[in-house]
Amino acid sequence: MGSDRAPRPEVEGAILACRHYDVQVVMVGREEQIRAELQQHPSAHTLPIDIVPASEVIGMDEKAATAVRSKRDSSMRVGLRLVREARAAGFITVGNTGAAMATAKMVLGALPGVDRPALAAVFPTAEGTAAVLLDVGANVDSKAHNLEQFAVMGEIYYRSIFGVKRPRVGLLSIGEEEGKGNELTREAFNLLKQLPLHFVGNVEGRDLYNGKLDVIVCDGFIGNVALKVSEGLVEAVRYLLKESLKSTITSPVGYLLSRKAFADFKKRLDYAEYGGAPLLGIKGVCIVGHGSSNSNALKNAIRVAAQFAQTKINDKIEKGLSSHNPRREPPPSDELGAGPAPA
Amino acid sequence: MGSDRAPRPEVEGAILACRHYDVQVVMVGREEQIRAELQQHPSAHTLPIDIVPASEVIGMDEKAATAVRSKRDSSMRVGLRLVREARAAGFITVGNTGAAMATAKMVLGALPGVDRPALAAVFPTAEGTAAVLLDVGANVDSKAHNLEQFAVMGEIYYRSIFGVKRPRVGLLSIGEEEGKGNELTREAFNLLKQLPLHFVGNVEGRDLYNGKLDVIVCDGFIGNVALKVSEGLVEAVRYLLKESLKSTITSPVGYLLSRKAFADFKKRLDYAEYGGAPLLGIKGVCIVGHGSSNSNALKNAIRVAAQFAQTKINDKIEKGLSSHNPRREPPPSDELGAGPAPA
Repeated sequence: MGSDRAPRPEVEGAILACRHYDVQVVMVGREEQIRAELQQHPSAHTLPIDIVPASEVIGMDEKAATAVRSKRDSSMRVGLRLVREARAAGFITVGNTGAAMATAKMVLGALPGVDRPALAAVFPTAEGTAAVLLDVGANVDSKAHNLEQFAVMGEIYYRSIFGVKRPRVGLLSIGEEEGKGNELTREAFNLLKQLPLHFVGNVEGRDLYNGKLDVIVCDGFIGNVALKVSEGLVEAVRYLLKESLKSTITSPVGYLLSRKAFADFKKRLDYAEYGGAPLLGIKGVCIVGHGSSNSNALKNAIRVAAQFAQTKINDKIEKGLSSHNPRREPPPSDELGAGPAPA
Repeated sequence: MGSDRAPRPEVEGAILACRHYDVQVVMVGREEQIRAELQQHPSAHTLPIDIVPASEVIGMDEKAATAVRSKRDSSMRVGLRLVREARAAGFITVGNTGAAMATAKMVLGALPGVDRPALAAVFPTAEGTAAVLLDVGANVDSKAHNLEQFAVMGEIYYRSIFGVKRPRVGLLSIGEEEGKGNELTREAFNLLKQLPLHFVGNVEGRDLYNGKLDVIVCDGFIGNVALKVSEGLVEAVRYLLKESLKSTITSPVGYLLSRKAFADFKKRLDYAEYGGAPLLGIKGVCIVGHGSSNSNALKNAIRVAAQFAQTKINDKIEKGLSSHNPRREPPPSDELGAGPAPA
């Protein structure tokens, strides 16, 4: 309910997913709005789409902490409750990311062995592969053992969803040698190199998009900045390129040709293909997409949620973390106060 | 001497600068190489270009800490000594960034009131303005009072170089409200809002390129990641776009037209126009450029160094920091060890 054009792309995505995949979709939210949208698609009544009503909506700009506490019948809360009650295999939202994370942590809780769940962004590289960056904002001021757990979770996710046997895992830092970086990355490096996975060491910001890595691990503040810088830069490049095309190509045929190239280019950069960011480390499946997601992104998010559940990623995470001596969060007397993650 | 194609772009940049601006250039390095390069330009002997010999070169991939200690006659060290001895108004290098920062700090020292010098990256925005991001890697694990000093230095730099009376200063964070971010940004926010400058509050990664800001302040780890993510993404976009153009545009005329647009686009994104990153907060002028800088970038770096010296930026920084109760570095008994900044 809470996305930019809800519930249209959600309903259309559900229809597409039910046509393409062996899934059933439960739409959660204001029943009359969803039903009205479904009625725009006469053939949809034969598809396995149900509605579970929820009276409240968390808006895109609402403060997560307040919204989560006060709106007890929000579509997010009701939807995540379906997951907790095993009435749904996973929950997908393209609404308020902060509220989604907070609600998921509250309703579902963390998996055994996970101190802090992490939001994993999935994006395309120049090589045509997908890369996973985590955490992109579920936590700030992470400790080294948090990054260790992110590495384990991210690697299992990548293996399960993309079918790569030994994904290349890197630690986002500045400079590639072992001693480079800050206090956090130097400590995390020591933990990551002991993990039974293909750890390639420190990597730099420029390695995010060159296809040399599959999983990139960092604190949520860093990951969020990296992601938003990227979004901003893509916008700027699109704008500048359009201006350049306008000023350079005067003949209508040239403009037409370049528009075609442009559409193709946009498609290759399209994050929608990857369907959204999974919240890793919670007891259940929760995928958070962009507020501007279209029906194709929603369709893919539903596919990813189904794969997530079917390949039993959470069982693997639990096993993976228990098998190599996980370092649990220090007791709350910790000198930094260990406040809750910001919404 | 230490850049990718030294000393060719350096010599060509010096020639261009002497032709365009009222400057004299001292080339520092291996005399015979520089002289040979100068002789490729017969008209150059009438220009005010001198050579000061230095026998050693710090390579691009050398470890900064070791190189700085062991190579006492490196072109960097000799060049920076000229600045200390007031025989040059400023020093420009497009060699090893880490070594340049370490050598500058060692040879010139920090300005009174500056706890940690900061490297400031200058880049173009979609609006056609320039933005300054600092620190981009001179320090990691900064404290709030370091960020406060970065804000003061960055604002003075922007005012002096770009002639903007009240540059808009933002604090790089995740989420725009005051409480958002991590421990460091929340603390820094409180200090920045008390400064006598146009502080617009927390800004997000996507604001780097949209032209809504002039100066963006952050810890050096964050800034370095942001910068390198940007570089990597621009590379990826260029590559993908080229592929798209190849596959879509079959007619030679379309390809030709798009190539023209491409060249124009590249020019608009060209960091070379801004001539390199100043190291702010040292007793002297030191500009560090990309190792792949061309002669145009070098020409602009020389212009920036001259402007830096002429507009007395360092006097203004010293005054600016003394006038609003600077918070000096805590004593070395600090619990975090306050290790030296990585090279």
